[in-house]
Amino acid sequence: MRSIFRRGLLVSGLGLLAFTSHAQTAKVNKPDSLVLRKIYDEALLRGQSYENLRYLTGQIGGRLSGSSQAEQAVQWGKVTMEKLGLDRVYLQEVMVPHWVRGAKEKAEIKGAKGKGLDMNVCALGGSVGTNGRIKAQVVEVQSWAELAALPDEKVKGKLVFFNRPMNPTFIETGQAYGEAGDQRRNGAIEAAKRGAIGALVRSLSLAHDDFPHTGTMRYDEKVTKIPAAALSTNGADQLSQLLKADPGLTFELEMNCETLPEVKSYNVVGEIKGTKYPNEIIAVGGHLDSWDLAQGAHDDGTGCVQSMEALRLLKAAGLKPERTVRAVLFMNEENGVRGGTKYAELAKSAGEKHLAAMESDGGGFTPRGFNIDAPAPTVKKIQQWQPLFRPYGSTEFKAGHSGTDIEPLKDQTKALIGYDCDDQRYFDIHHTAADTFDKVNRRELELGGASMASLIYLLSKYGL
Amino acid sequence: MRSIFRRGLLVSGLGLLAFTSHAQTAKVNKPDSLVLRKIYDEALLRGQSYENLRYLTGQIGGRLSGSSQAEQAVQWGKVTMEKLGLDRVYLQEVMVPHWVRGAKEKAEIKGAKGKGLDMNVCALGGSVGTNGRIKAQVVEVQSWAELAALPDEKVKGKLVFFNRPMNPTFIETGQAYGEAGDQRRNGAIEAAKRGAIGALVRSLSLAHDDFPHTGTMRYDEKVTKIPAAALSTNGADQLSQLLKADPGLTFELEMNCETLPEVKSYNVVGEIKGTKYPNEIIAVGGHLDSWDLAQGAHDDGTGCVQSMEALRLLKAAGLKPERTVRAVLFMNEENGVRGGTKYAELAKSAGEKHLAAMESDGGGFTPRGFNIDAPAPTVKKIQQWQPLFRPYGSTEFKAGHSGTDIEPLKDQTKALIGYDCDDQRYFDIHHTAADTFDKVNRRELELGGASMASLIYLLSKYGL
Repeated sequence: MRSIFRRGLLVSGLGLLAFTSHAQTAKVNKPDSLVLRKIYDEALLRGQSYENLRYLTGQIGGRLSGSSQAEQAVQWGKVTMEKLGLDRVYLQEVMVPHWVRGAKEKAEIKGAKGKGLDMNVCALGGSVGTNGRIKAQVVEVQSWAELAALPDEKVKGKLVFFNRPMNPTFIETGQAYGEAGDQRRNGAIEAAKRGAIGALVRSLSLAHDDFPHTGTMRYDEKVTKIPAAALSTNGADQLSQLLKADPGLTFELEMNCETLPEVKSYNVVGEIKGTKYPNEIIAVGGHLDSWDLAQGAHDDGTGCVQSMEALRLLKAAGLKPERTVRAVLFMNEENGVRGGTKYAELAKSAGEKHLAAMESDGGGFTPRGFNIDAPAPTVKKIQQWQPLFRPYGSTEFKAGHSGTDIEPLKDQTKALIGYDCDDQRYFDIHHTAADTFDKVNRRELELGGASMASLIYLLSKYGL
Repeated sequence: MRSIFRRGLLVSGLGLLAFTSHAQTAKVNKPDSLVLRKIYDEALLRGQSYENLRYLTGQIGGRLSGSSQAEQAVQWGKVTMEKLGLDRVYLQEVMVPHWVRGAKEKAEIKGAKGKGLDMNVCALGGSVGTNGRIKAQVVEVQSWAELAALPDEKVKGKLVFFNRPMNPTFIETGQAYGEAGDQRRNGAIEAAKRGAIGALVRSLSLAHDDFPHTGTMRYDEKVTKIPAAALSTNGADQLSQLLKADPGLTFELEMNCETLPEVKSYNVVGEIKGTKYPNEIIAVGGHLDSWDLAQGAHDDGTGCVQSMEALRLLKAAGLKPERTVRAVLFMNEENGVRGGTKYAELAKSAGEKHLAAMESDGGGFTPRGFNIDAPAPTVKKIQQWQPLFRPYGSTEFKAGHSGTDIEPLKDQTKALIGYDCDDQRYFDIHHTAADTFDKVNRRELELGGASMASLIYLLSKYGL
């Protein structure tokens, strides 16, 4: 790389004994730019997001709603916030679904000659089990239209294999995820309507690998509930190839996942009281639950640690926000959004007034900016602060989707804001066993927390 | 993450049987924006950078100048370009340094009680060996000023330990690298001037881990050549701690690296002749050599495969560039820049006219834009194309450093351009055993090649 012999940026190195911060020039409010520099320095020199995430992912791990790990995570969140010396830390009780994967999750493909080929699968979240082993032929489709065009006898008693890949030409991978997600969401319903006995869904991933990606699916109470499983992208390609050679092959599937009675759980909330307008609240959060397959690092451990860190950064930078700032670790984003829904309900019934709510739930990658869900004049107002973020690479201040947990607040707040970061790698690991701590880069994570704290600082100072 | 149940981006999914490209709106020349979309689609659907890199890193591996792997890489580059059906592929002969690490590289710390502690070290590139095992006390400094202030008896016969960390508060990590690099570059000279017998240098890295980072260092012919080795960041912290407890500890170092006679090697060049202005050349390159410790994936296998890919993308998109476009795989960036220097010399002696030269040598991460080294009006002209790149996230078109291999062309071209990508993770792995293929993300890499091809297309069409 760029040899240090030849770079123009060299400094003499004489006597640089301590780190000094390097204020960048921008046509922006000078005091505000200095505050941001202070926030970023604190994050880059002494940020705690990374070590907090190490604990959450390594010592607690995957934490699906209703699991004992989810309850450990609640306690961890509470204790971690209490250590920050906030004005108030509390729990919000909420009932959550309790789906368990079970110990058995097995698939085997058997061809004409009876030879078996094992295949990685995972149950989609919420799926019923197979009640023993089911064995059936497979019919592959790429769209609802293809399914609709099939004669009944081609579907009845079969497994419908939804194999439309995510479209790699979308630059924002979240768009490709949204577009392909109908298969995972509605596959079991649509297949069952036609008499199928199960649904196999290509993993929502742009990578070519062997990890099946779970994620939530749904049933229609008027339609038979059939089991639904995800294949890895490699597995889906392989099955598709095998079907071309032997359309009569048999797919055997065994899963003993099930839905147990609902369980009591909690959102974790910590707040700094506003000095001037304590009744105007800025909430910032991520979701504490994750899928069970992995550690829930990027989804959404990063959002949780960044949200707590945002409050810590404000305090460490010596800032006393004029409006109340609240970190919320939401429970149950993945399969129910009960925590987000409860938070909005409680805020409403308590007559709380939210100025804004922000969520980080797109991974802990290098920050790009913010997606703003608000009326156009409010979007514009927030966009006016963009120059302050230019020295830090957070330049995309756009209208867009915010976050699932804060959407229930939509009618109770002036702006919903989604933390936006580089999403090229996100879906490679999303909802799989590969969503682990080692995939998170310390600087990328801490820069994200700093950008969130910075926008919160501006919101708390100027309002909307 | 953002549940697909609740996103606003859902489409019906009916009958999406083939990928369609999604033209983005921008206030830009429509035909050009369509060409860019075509280039990006080709890269994202059928990009070859990733598979080419897999071969280079996995089948050839580390390829320090003068090594047999470097020669294999030359042949691989030539064959790979020949397969692209370019108008011309050729080699440029160049003599390169031939430094070898040798089989022994060992360090041990011995305290007052004589107990030994092994420490990971690696010789800095170009270092002399230790000629057996050297044993000496260690004196730690953070700056040249600290070294200068030490009395002679504190330095003479000792190992000087340069332990100033990279400054994490720089947002662009390359800046922190440039600022701390003087220790690696001049440590051995400055230590030897004061009578030291060796230099130990803290690795140029922002990560906390056990990988020592190599990289080039230099000698002054008038000063005794003493061996220089890098410690990992963890190792440097540990040594610093141990020194506090026991300033008299002994550091034992054994390295049998040496510099052998120079070796004949090559730049690899492939070109597409311009249809209108064949004598105006746009060069795009990366460097083919790498350090020996790892696979040279991000440094700079990615730049090589992207440069070749840029030409392939132009062809695959059906574009016939009006100016000549040339991919150059430079030899010997890491420890001599002989290839870059030779390329500029040959261009000059042949009377070639370069319109622009571009280099990718900052890793294969998500593209951010381009750094332009040119007179202000030329920078402005290139910046006018920025809106075309907005849909693809390449928004930073700034004046700045281009690339080490193309800098010798400075007086022979209108603009030097450095491909700019997210550099937060780069120095974690730079020049270490960890710079491996698995650290490269396919989409990030292919998006980079597409952004390079797109700018080359505009340069070839409009000139400067």
